[in-house]
Amino acid sequence: MRIGILGPEGTFSETAALLWLKRMETGNIEEVERQYYETIFDVSESLLRKDVNYGIVPIENSLEGSVGETLDLLLNENREGGMRIVGEILVPITICLLSKGTFTQIRTLASHPHALAQCKYFIRSRLQITGVKVKSVDSTAGAARLAQEDESIAALASAEAAKKYGLSILTENVQDQESVTRFIVLSSAGSRTQPTGRDKTSVIIYLKSDRPGALYDVLGEFAQRGVNLTKIESRPSKRALGDYMFHIDCEGHVEEDEIKEVLEAVERKVAMLKILGSYPRAISF
Amino acid sequence: MRIGILGPEGTFSETAALLWLKRMETGNIEEVERQYYETIFDVSESLLRKDVNYGIVPIENSLEGSVGETLDLLLNENREGGMRIVGEILVPITICLLSKGTFTQIRTLASHPHALAQCKYFIRSRLQITGVKVKSVDSTAGAARLAQEDESIAALASAEAAKKYGLSILTENVQDQESVTRFIVLSSAGSRTQPTGRDKTSVIIYLKSDRPGALYDVLGEFAQRGVNLTKIESRPSKRALGDYMFHIDCEGHVEEDEIKEVLEAVERKVAMLKILGSYPRAISF
Repeated sequence: MRIGILGPEGTFSETAALLWLKRMETGNIEEVERQYYETIFDVSESLLRKDVNYGIVPIENSLEGSVGETLDLLLNENREGGMRIVGEILVPITICLLSKGTFTQIRTLASHPHALAQCKYFIRSRLQITGVKVKSVDSTAGAARLAQEDESIAALASAEAAKKYGLSILTENVQDQESVTRFIVLSSAGSRTQPTGRDKTSVIIYLKSDRPGALYDVLGEFAQRGVNLTKIESRPSKRALGDYMFHIDCEGHVEEDEIKEVLEAVERKVAMLKILGSYPRAISF
Repeated sequence: MRIGILGPEGTFSETAALLWLKRMETGNIEEVERQYYETIFDVSESLLRKDVNYGIVPIENSLEGSVGETLDLLLNENREGGMRIVGEILVPITICLLSKGTFTQIRTLASHPHALAQCKYFIRSRLQITGVKVKSVDSTAGAARLAQEDESIAALASAEAAKKYGLSILTENVQDQESVTRFIVLSSAGSRTQPTGRDKTSVIIYLKSDRPGALYDVLGEFAQRGVNLTKIESRPSKRALGDYMFHIDCEGHVEEDEIKEVLEAVERKVAMLKILGSYPRAISF
């Protein structure tokens, strides 16, 4: 078995992969080959080429909102034998200040823009007042790699990254607020999950028109059957301003009668319904 | 009159400001003092300090989706005498490749991440194959400023920026797809706009519970009265994963009876209703 992960090593995506492998009870985790990719797009391409059996990518963070690249990928990937969501993982994000040197040596702080945004207060109150410069890089692990090369560079990254890159944890838990990132596990379209009684189904819909009440009508199909929505998120259709696709997650499995009924009714009312998959709900923290 | 604009000079925010001033028929546009700020937050702070009478910030792009910083600001700013949306402007985004040198001299391409995302195809097919490096910077105008200093740096920015920074337009319209950015005009909470018959009202709601159908119920208040929604967008509440605020725009003015009725009914059903303002709808392209 091989899994594709948004890299480099030591990002929260790797934490997600390890949590998922543990839950799947795949036996010896060390025997699962982990491939790291630079972009979310590259993870999905490797899955479609069958270089990996599973792909793990972030989809939303409780503070920052959705990862647009992942939502667009789920919408646009329509090749035959495409892909399906077969799992989800929730990872609590704890960000640390890492460096090879000491606090007073820091001249530059590097991290991913999301991590920088999540530690605004810490950065302003502890680092910027001493003249430290802030630098955006592609990933938290990429920041750790920079810090490995230069004692004057500190990184905001995971405790995992400190181990991988031989850095000291100068301060733990520097984020302004607790947050959780939700990752999804992708597999080829052929793979199906069995209902467990605690599942979630993800779909995308595109409404027929923007007449008053079109969305209202569709949500009614869920509400009237008492099916709980765990997420509804609009995403620009990229056709015109104010024209949206809706990403909807609901409780239940697509092979259960109630969900089947809802989706059949929804399909009759919309211009497009894309079922992304049904999968066991992650345990939340 | 003074207006605060997300700077630096030569960004699309300035184009928006000029379009709005023209529409407002404020007389000599050159007499309106334009103040440029580094962040969206700084624009709103200057408005709250009464340094400026109006603030102009981007809120959404038809390809990239919403500007999270602006949505969060509209939600969180609750100081007395706070702010209100009094106008909107639509700006078609045409991105150009700018440089002081020639095409073959380009070694680095700089721009704002949104502009880089919007020109992916051009960058891959024309620049990256010749080994050009890509660099993210804070704004398209910031990229133009870098290009002014070094002939080996090219910027993706507006034609306006070419003029301001003395650069040549090497290629026009390099974006993969046409797009439009919507800007809003903010003013102090005291300022009200008169109904024009072609208005829009923006609100934020927070539902009482995530019971099945809570959102459905609220949308029903609009649908039953035939009030058209022009936008509905979820935004993480920052309390827990899957917990959302909804930003809703509808047609009509808050001083019209129909809209008043809808909002009174909505208010009884939600934990929070925040009215952001009513304002004339922008003419779309």
